[in-house]
Amino acid sequence: MGDPLIRDRHRLRWNGWGWADAPDPFTDRPGAWDWLASEFGMRALPETPAVPLDAVMLPPVALSEAALAALRAAVGEANLKTDDYERAFHARGQSYADLIALRAGDLAMCPDAVVYPESEEAVARVLVTAADHGFDVIPYGGGSSVVGGINADRDGGRGVVTLDVTRLCGVIDIDETALVATAHAGIYGPQLEAVLNDKGFTLGHFPQSFEFSTLGGWVAHHGSGQNSGLYGRADVWLVSARIVTPRGVWDTEGFPRSAAGANLNQLLLGSEGQLGVITRVTFRIRRKPELQDYRGFLFPTFEAGVDAARTMLQADAPAAMVRLSDAAETRFFRLGATAGTPHADGLKTRLENAVLRMNKVAEKPCLMIIGQEGERRATKRNAKRTAKIARGFGAFSLGRKAGARWRAHRFAAPYQRDPMLDHGVGVDTLETATRWSNVSALRDAVMVALEKAMRETAPAGAERGRAMCHVSHAYRDGASLYFTCIFPRDDADALGQWRAIKTAASDAVTQNGGTISHHHGVGTDHRSWFEAEKGPYGLAVLRAVKRELDPHGVMNPGKLLG
Amino acid sequence: MGDPLIRDRHRLRWNGWGWADAPDPFTDRPGAWDWLASEFGMRALPETPAVPLDAVMLPPVALSEAALAALRAAVGEANLKTDDYERAFHARGQSYADLIALRAGDLAMCPDAVVYPESEEAVARVLVTAADHGFDVIPYGGGSSVVGGINADRDGGRGVVTLDVTRLCGVIDIDETALVATAHAGIYGPQLEAVLNDKGFTLGHFPQSFEFSTLGGWVAHHGSGQNSGLYGRADVWLVSARIVTPRGVWDTEGFPRSAAGANLNQLLLGSEGQLGVITRVTFRIRRKPELQDYRGFLFPTFEAGVDAARTMLQADAPAAMVRLSDAAETRFFRLGATAGTPHADGLKTRLENAVLRMNKVAEKPCLMIIGQEGERRATKRNAKRTAKIARGFGAFSLGRKAGARWRAHRFAAPYQRDPMLDHGVGVDTLETATRWSNVSALRDAVMVALEKAMRETAPAGAERGRAMCHVSHAYRDGASLYFTCIFPRDDADALGQWRAIKTAASDAVTQNGGTISHHHGVGTDHRSWFEAEKGPYGLAVLRAVKRELDPHGVMNPGKLLG
Repeated sequence: MGDPLIRDRHRLRWNGWGWADAPDPFTDRPGAWDWLASEFGMRALPETPAVPLDAVMLPPVALSEAALAALRAAVGEANLKTDDYERAFHARGQSYADLIALRAGDLAMCPDAVVYPESEEAVARVLVTAADHGFDVIPYGGGSSVVGGINADRDGGRGVVTLDVTRLCGVIDIDETALVATAHAGIYGPQLEAVLNDKGFTLGHFPQSFEFSTLGGWVAHHGSGQNSGLYGRADVWLVSARIVTPRGVWDTEGFPRSAAGANLNQLLLGSEGQLGVITRVTFRIRRKPELQDYRGFLFPTFEAGVDAARTMLQADAPAAMVRLSDAAETRFFRLGATAGTPHADGLKTRLENAVLRMNKVAEKPCLMIIGQEGERRATKRNAKRTAKIARGFGAFSLGRKAGARWRAHRFAAPYQRDPMLDHGVGVDTLETATRWSNVSALRDAVMVALEKAMRETAPAGAERGRAMCHVSHAYRDGASLYFTCIFPRDDADALGQWRAIKTAASDAVTQNGGTISHHHGVGTDHRSWFEAEKGPYGLAVLRAVKRELDPHGVMNPGKLLG
Repeated sequence: MGDPLIRDRHRLRWNGWGWADAPDPFTDRPGAWDWLASEFGMRALPETPAVPLDAVMLPPVALSEAALAALRAAVGEANLKTDDYERAFHARGQSYADLIALRAGDLAMCPDAVVYPESEEAVARVLVTAADHGFDVIPYGGGSSVVGGINADRDGGRGVVTLDVTRLCGVIDIDETALVATAHAGIYGPQLEAVLNDKGFTLGHFPQSFEFSTLGGWVAHHGSGQNSGLYGRADVWLVSARIVTPRGVWDTEGFPRSAAGANLNQLLLGSEGQLGVITRVTFRIRRKPELQDYRGFLFPTFEAGVDAARTMLQADAPAAMVRLSDAAETRFFRLGATAGTPHADGLKTRLENAVLRMNKVAEKPCLMIIGQEGERRATKRNAKRTAKIARGFGAFSLGRKAGARWRAHRFAAPYQRDPMLDHGVGVDTLETATRWSNVSALRDAVMVALEKAMRETAPAGAERGRAMCHVSHAYRDGASLYFTCIFPRDDADALGQWRAIKTAASDAVTQNGGTISHHHGVGTDHRSWFEAEKGPYGLAVLRAVKRELDPHGVMNPGKLLG
């Protein structure tokens, strides 16, 4: 496999984020652990290393010889894998619950086999084989789901085969006049952008998982990139798709716009592998931006920042990104970044604090990053305009350095989780969206719920966890809120602790006017809240569509629709 | 019924467009008819008045006494109508085929009864009654469908009841912070805008049918307003809806954005009454524009105009509207507007022609109207920018007068059709959308098909009809094309003539990469092309959704899904 678009799974972590040989982001911040312990009201953090794969016993492969032979015939001998590494790698996604299970060596959830089809015909053959032999199929792209979306649950008692689409990864066509391109769904973010950039274009879809997620996954879970203010969410850039369903190959309609019935592409967004395997995607692209202008601002209060963001979005002053951290998040990352370094209480920090006090944002500053990009002149103008709006709401400008810092670390956060997990720390994120008129109230309610749940589930010797929040995506009518909670892990019942925190937060979200997910999706973890959100008729409709395309129910059972 | 939002149907034409007492737009252009005759290669146009309603025999009401009694109980005695005027008024929509039938006194298609529910509960009661008594229900808003979408086909052999929603017409809520409003679905465009404007807001949805179409209809047929470049199509402004289905009342999810499964609001767009009756709609609004700048330009060729429109859309230079007439349309309206007046060959016209020749757009000029609106400064800037792009493609500026003229007549075209039909003229429109890379080729193919079909179906004594086209809506990836054909009617077989022309054009659209409709919808007239466009899996999915919500198949049978 000399194709540079194809990634060797053995170079990636099977029980964590990203490249196996990625450096530990905490090496130059050894004081971070003591600081974190003090944040939790603890004396010190424990060492809690993960169980290595060779110490783990995987469940035996539960596929019949006939099924394995049929799979071999479907995808070719070399593309059927039943070894421990492949099964472990594809066992689960990247949620906190996934990682505590994997790191504990719990592979009760894992596929019996992994197939890497090299053609759409091979995908179709796998689905036929699944119906014939009665096993389940889980479509798998980058495996970056944080909601259990690609987990290989063996409770059904049937065999489980994970269908890894990452060998279907070529760019098929670029229509430079219409600014529309088509690629196979298994292409990773960086590879797709490289091909597009080469011709002067970009899709501009940069989720935090960008490096380790795929085009098809972005569609299947209804994703949003960090710059969706300019480039749009998947529902904006998706033109059409090919989805190999158990019934047959469906090429959806792909016009610029149409009034010929409902736009059925919208049913693929958030379909989470229920209807089939998305094998190619046609999407809108843009010319590479001539200019990128990212700046930081500090607001005196979260509410002032929210009002400023709303004003920007509702004015004719678009931004590629508006991201507003609350005071807790601003404080946490400010202190965390310098903890244990000479800067922590140094002159520089004291000077900074003095400047902030002078500018009346010292008490509880809230960091906003505004990203502008596009044509040179429009970008400059929009940056000036949004800066003016920010100042109108009392913001203190940190300039482009703060923007550059954010950009440099935009995909780095997930890499910090693995070492945290090595130090007895729990960390989870969740996100929602609501109308502007409800943004602050929803934030407050979820923060209270998170803090209470973390306090109540703290292990002996620890007092609390830390919750924080940022507005991650902003629209004319509302915004998404992204919460991070970091807490002392209770290793006596890490899963129970997580469930208590997750449930408290999700209840708070849905009882206070938020959607159960703005961009992570549903998977298994959000199912019960999702059902309440869609209501009985919404669910009935989705299940009717599922039955139509997947009559034998082989596609990703247990996720989304149950 | 003293409510100013409710319109007395008797003040509207039952067999034509708009207010019954609207003035004849041709009174000051008596020469238009001779000019039109010469365009068709005819000596003169005939007089072909419509049959008055009192000369028409309607089919007897085919509902049982029990069904009528149940309907009376459902909506109240005063809100059940079985008189000739109400049945005739609700018989058909506004397509050319509808008008030739109605004007000929053919009311073979007409509902047995019309109900005007005054509450959502009453709507639900009507649907229960329909299942109990085995009649069909046709949801009806403004009745402006041009594709047979609300026609009361009695061929099913069951009774047909038209459910007129226009008494559900109040504005329920305006969230001025989130810029989101909710109204009952039966509100007409002007009434909705009046309420919003009063508070400083606008929905900005201005289809040509604006004066006689309703909020719910805009959603049900997946509509686009003329200014959708700024305000968005219905799929952009729709937040959520309440739809009373035969199964029960479904309130769809309504978040700014969500990744919790597919956005099911998208299934209501283009549902065309198949799933139930939309009774309320929540939608995104904007502040009323501070400035509106509409200007005209003449391009030397259609292709130059297309390239200019594409460049505007793909640059960071948005426009509320970009509308580009081809040479045939530009010529037709220019000559038609002055035909039979002293201007036709006067000094002014000759001077104009000389100016155009000097500016190298004299041969076959193509008119573009660019509409900018929004904040004062952004509007000025965008108008300057798009004007510069236009000039870069060889356009000659006609200034704001041409824009004002277009705005003054933006809803007037349908009023011209009735007097045309009185003069033996046939007139139909159709529209599609395709990618920029295919816009000119698709236009050419449809124009050839239309002209050939009109030639072949011209009655004795006539040679040809006139086809023309404009780009009506433009996007980053493509545009819609709107065709008008005006032809000498063959009164020996007016319906057959229309079918031949319509079929030729629709075949040309779909065989050349266009959708069968960009904003008119499917109804009955586009069904066969729609089926090909959605494909077997798309249709299967839509039918599965229909079966789920309308298990007895009472909702608007024969339309969209057959």
